[in-house]
Amino acid sequence: MTQRSAAKDGPVAILAGSGQLPIQLVEHLEKTGQDCRVLAFRGFVSADLRRRADAHVDLLDLKSIMRRLEEWQPRAVALVGAVRRPGFSALLGAYSLLRNRQEVREVIARGDDQVLRGAVMLLEERGYKVVGAHELAPGLVAPLSMTGHRAPGAEDIQAISFGLDLLRSLSAFDIGQAAIVAREHVLAVEGPEGTDRMLGRVAAMRQSLFGFRKRRDGGVLIKAAKAGQDLRVDMPAIGPRTVSEAARAGLSGIAVGAGSTLVLEQEKTLALADRLGLFLVAVELPWMDRAHES
Amino acid sequence: MTQRSAAKDGPVAILAGSGQLPIQLVEHLEKTGQDCRVLAFRGFVSADLRRRADAHVDLLDLKSIMRRLEEWQPRAVALVGAVRRPGFSALLGAYSLLRNRQEVREVIARGDDQVLRGAVMLLEERGYKVVGAHELAPGLVAPLSMTGHRAPGAEDIQAISFGLDLLRSLSAFDIGQAAIVAREHVLAVEGPEGTDRMLGRVAAMRQSLFGFRKRRDGGVLIKAAKAGQDLRVDMPAIGPRTVSEAARAGLSGIAVGAGSTLVLEQEKTLALADRLGLFLVAVELPWMDRAHES
Repeated sequence: MTQRSAAKDGPVAILAGSGQLPIQLVEHLEKTGQDCRVLAFRGFVSADLRRRADAHVDLLDLKSIMRRLEEWQPRAVALVGAVRRPGFSALLGAYSLLRNRQEVREVIARGDDQVLRGAVMLLEERGYKVVGAHELAPGLVAPLSMTGHRAPGAEDIQAISFGLDLLRSLSAFDIGQAAIVAREHVLAVEGPEGTDRMLGRVAAMRQSLFGFRKRRDGGVLIKAAKAGQDLRVDMPAIGPRTVSEAARAGLSGIAVGAGSTLVLEQEKTLALADRLGLFLVAVELPWMDRAHES
Repeated sequence: MTQRSAAKDGPVAILAGSGQLPIQLVEHLEKTGQDCRVLAFRGFVSADLRRRADAHVDLLDLKSIMRRLEEWQPRAVALVGAVRRPGFSALLGAYSLLRNRQEVREVIARGDDQVLRGAVMLLEERGYKVVGAHELAPGLVAPLSMTGHRAPGAEDIQAISFGLDLLRSLSAFDIGQAAIVAREHVLAVEGPEGTDRMLGRVAAMRQSLFGFRKRRDGGVLIKAAKAGQDLRVDMPAIGPRTVSEAARAGLSGIAVGAGSTLVLEQEKTLALADRLGLFLVAVELPWMDRAHES
């Protein structure tokens, strides 16, 4: 492990999944003159990033992943972008090459966070420093001061407060970075399907109920890191698509956890919220101190 | 209110929504020689029940509903079958005819249960006795002894225990009669879309992940009354369709709260579970004593 602690000048290694975050992070690093290498997960990365990637691997091909890192000697490793959770036995097979089978079985029986944390542990054991996108590019994180031109109304404030309570309760179950709430009525809780599909569900529900929607039905998308969440993995993120899907679902706005949510293309995202008449605010998460400590 | 307390010999009035429960309840009452009248909600009741109904009303036409009850002088009133929650302002308009507008606004700002409880309160204030389907037809309720030919495995037991913890936590938020869990990994939490659609979501997620499903992926549908739930309204229910949708989602079985879940067409449901290779069990809910007291 000694060669790793000496790798202070190595590049940043980005293990990249799907979505806009990996490419934006790479652009940020390049703009600020930081050397980086991209290891793209086959079948996940966007077309842009596929061209930019230094190497391509299968998500579960841990041997090749470790070989690349060995070669690059990165000063830091970041896991960014989404990947679909592989099936249980595929995960078991892949990780068992490196760890005790029973131990692996117990970790992957749990939620997504636990699996991702397992990956972080594995990297750390091998002497790599694992960092989050928010550490590499703090400018991508929603500041408490973030706001569009609209402000939430009294009913929206009620929904945000109710939704935060709900998300906090769900933290223990390794699920639920997001929920949709109208006043104190929960319209949806996010599962592994992700935020966009959850928004689509609410849009469809409202559509089938009224035939077509003449007016805004209200409700707020609340998205926040879980209590105790390791922000280096699966940090909550929103972007322009979140805003347009929220509008399609008839919501009045979006609230995200300040300091712990990534906002992709922040200017574009805020401008779109303004244009579509949605509020977009960052709120202090009452539980985030605990998350920082853990 | 005096005329109502004298109505000991009146019929049972069924305010009927969609699904199989209303028709099965009516059949049970007729078979056991109990006089009943059916008030069908337009656009909700099944074709069978539409023919059998004694009167048809709009869900929000409280005046006509009250007029019918006044006429029938029922010894008990049951609200059975599903209705879609109407929009906020429609609800507000309808209920405001009968109650203080601000009070109504506060009740319907909350979850579905609260709205249904509001309806129960309204009926009780007018001297009607509101009962649940489980009181009129105890045979429709899942007994603790209910089981198909298969038994849950160790991983299923783990999922059931995890799922019950989750549902208990969600009780406070008036959501979540059901969840789908594989070991300790939550695949879905039910929102207002209902159990069938939640199962369809998991089926779709698994489909898109593997292209097609060669084998059973596992996981359990856990469905249970909320802590503190008034079983006279929105009692959890399963039936043959729940079983076939659970099979399509690749689940290994279904667990429901004993004594507090309706199982429609119980024999058919169990036989289908056996045929499709799913277990179907009733489990004791640790929180049900509290629910009975409330």
